[in-house]
Amino acid sequence: MPKMKVLNGNMLIAQSGGPTAVINQTLVGAVLQARNHGCIEKVLGAKHGIQGILNEDFVNLGRETEANLEKVAQTPSSALGSVRKKPTAEDCEKIFEVLKKYNVRYFFYIGGNDSAETTHIINQAARKAKYDFRCFHLCKTIDNDLRQNDHTPGFGSAARFVASAFMGDNQDNRALGGVKINVIMGRHAGFLTAAAALAKVHPDDGPHLIYLPERAFSMAKFAKDVKAVMKEYGRCVIAVSEGICDSKGQPIIAAHTKEVDSHGNLQLSGTGALGDILADELKQRTGISRVRADTFGYLQRSFPGVVSPVDAKEARSVGTSGVKFAVKHFSDGSVAIQRKPSKRYAVTFERVTLKSVAKETKHMPAKFIHKDGNQVTDAFIDYVKPLVGPLPVIGRLKDYSVAKQK
Amino acid sequence: MPKMKVLNGNMLIAQSGGPTAVINQTLVGAVLQARNHGCIEKVLGAKHGIQGILNEDFVNLGRETEANLEKVAQTPSSALGSVRKKPTAEDCEKIFEVLKKYNVRYFFYIGGNDSAETTHIINQAARKAKYDFRCFHLCKTIDNDLRQNDHTPGFGSAARFVASAFMGDNQDNRALGGVKINVIMGRHAGFLTAAAALAKVHPDDGPHLIYLPERAFSMAKFAKDVKAVMKEYGRCVIAVSEGICDSKGQPIIAAHTKEVDSHGNLQLSGTGALGDILADELKQRTGISRVRADTFGYLQRSFPGVVSPVDAKEARSVGTSGVKFAVKHFSDGSVAIQRKPSKRYAVTFERVTLKSVAKETKHMPAKFIHKDGNQVTDAFIDYVKPLVGPLPVIGRLKDYSVAKQK
Repeated sequence: MPKMKVLNGNMLIAQSGGPTAVINQTLVGAVLQARNHGCIEKVLGAKHGIQGILNEDFVNLGRETEANLEKVAQTPSSALGSVRKKPTAEDCEKIFEVLKKYNVRYFFYIGGNDSAETTHIINQAARKAKYDFRCFHLCKTIDNDLRQNDHTPGFGSAARFVASAFMGDNQDNRALGGVKINVIMGRHAGFLTAAAALAKVHPDDGPHLIYLPERAFSMAKFAKDVKAVMKEYGRCVIAVSEGICDSKGQPIIAAHTKEVDSHGNLQLSGTGALGDILADELKQRTGISRVRADTFGYLQRSFPGVVSPVDAKEARSVGTSGVKFAVKHFSDGSVAIQRKPSKRYAVTFERVTLKSVAKETKHMPAKFIHKDGNQVTDAFIDYVKPLVGPLPVIGRLKDYSVAKQK
Repeated sequence: MPKMKVLNGNMLIAQSGGPTAVINQTLVGAVLQARNHGCIEKVLGAKHGIQGILNEDFVNLGRETEANLEKVAQTPSSALGSVRKKPTAEDCEKIFEVLKKYNVRYFFYIGGNDSAETTHIINQAARKAKYDFRCFHLCKTIDNDLRQNDHTPGFGSAARFVASAFMGDNQDNRALGGVKINVIMGRHAGFLTAAAALAKVHPDDGPHLIYLPERAFSMAKFAKDVKAVMKEYGRCVIAVSEGICDSKGQPIIAAHTKEVDSHGNLQLSGTGALGDILADELKQRTGISRVRADTFGYLQRSFPGVVSPVDAKEARSVGTSGVKFAVKHFSDGSVAIQRKPSKRYAVTFERVTLKSVAKETKHMPAKFIHKDGNQVTDAFIDYVKPLVGPLPVIGRLKDYSVAKQK
């Protein structure tokens, strides 16, 4: 790795975008690592991402005890507060003025691809002004859709929640029958929805059908698929991504909601609309009477106590690695998790360019999606299994037969 | 306790109504206890409650190993399958014929108040026919609405899920702001919704507002309450029972769904409709832009790995006690959990009459509901806390201030 000159100054860290169950592990990893480097003077946190920088709304993280930070690390959702804001050119100028005023030489922004884009813009402004500055994006997103990353912190825990939920819900559906639709987060990438497949213990377990945003969704095909499963198992559990679109790329939910954020993203979460649309259509098209839909919603990303140990550990390392890179090796970049090609699961933490992570999202590769477009492949199971940790035990009665009395 | 004569014959057990996370503990408790009594010959399970009796769809639980039963005990949702069916007079006759045909002398039906009613009807038929028969209802319901019970098996684990979910969701709302509505199960009784209050760690934590079916719900009052919380905290987390009704007793969701089960119950779960109705109304009435609604749905009752240890233990004891009562002390009844008036939490398992548990539901007593009708009292917290087990650690940054630079 290259070696950078010593740069003295303050550090600023902030969190952005949708929270995760382990995003504070990354924060705490970075804050504790900073304490090992004399060149980092004050350690500041901005409240609510770049909004806090614009408002000079800072907290002193240097005064936090390690014991309290460790409690924060275990707590889901962004402890510094989050924001969904794309900075304007004017914002960037202002942000940059603030960074200079507080002698911030180390900047870390924890977020997804939108946040990587923001970090990239701020970094470009600093380069243009020849401001000596170390600027890093620290990856997180339950969607698992960041380029350059094998997977992202937050995904493993959200996947663990989704898989656990389906394990229980499959039992619920076995008990009461009918069709159960569960709508999972993931705007453009189906990884989290696909993780529902980990719930399968027995061959007849759900999810029997999995619909991802990577494949065009057709109501007619959907109804046909469900009828086939009902015929085989007498019940049907379905995982559907909130982001499913028709063959023209129009989100299925689009007719029913119009709210967009400042990145132009449509509101998909925090509403049960998609589940209800699908349930109603299915009842009409198939005549099946018991059709239920749940939308897992924000529980997926912020549920305490259902955390993947691997995910928590890796999220911590992303924070630690970011600070090490910034102090010693690179002026800017994003910390990416890459998987070693070894048989036993292992990862490395690499520095990649901001631009290579920013804006665009990664999708489920074709090898992970079954050719019928309504299930995942074994290759996906192999990929996702090490990320979630051991799942709950699911027992089943052996159903020893009883001879009918005459 | 009275002493009954020895009655030799077979045992039949079944599960009914909405599943819970610990309903199989009760099943396994009863099945293992039966092995201690020579008078109980075969131990049969009926698939899908009384439907399985009508169809003579039985499994031999006597052949199950203890090891497999212990796995089943840990698994959420009814392992024998469940049913929502109110038997007709004709059904009762048929059920009774089947019981006689299989020499069933011990019958246990695990369920809520509707199932207690079914057990009562079957028992009456047996008495009328002078059939020597031990007939017990074993309580369960996440709604916690059974008369004669301090609380019911399944409630503690569901309450643990709801409280955990609110702990995480409160952090999510702190990070991103706005209004968050979470719709909780509970048709007529608000206990489970009220359990969300356990999520409060700091005085400004949500849920800031709690709406229960025991108090008339007014949209205007709701909007006013939310505006007041937004003014005080700049954000608002709300727990709403799926069963909230207006001042005329009309469910708020009623205009939007018409599906009823054979007990005449309206479909409230498995749809996000109520949350969306409330979110839309709130946006219109207050002008608040970020309003999100999640419906926790079936996750509340069947999530594996989020089980209250107290609840699991008590559910097991209900099964054990039921068999003991039936073999030695009573010809019929329901097993009720009653709390000792001691300072330290302790319960006893009592036999109560079937009729006293059947049909009608228990509501949140007035002493548990804040006079404003939008929060719970400390008395409720004292009541519910021992039932859920230790909750996750929630940490928070100390927010040490940073002097503004000029």
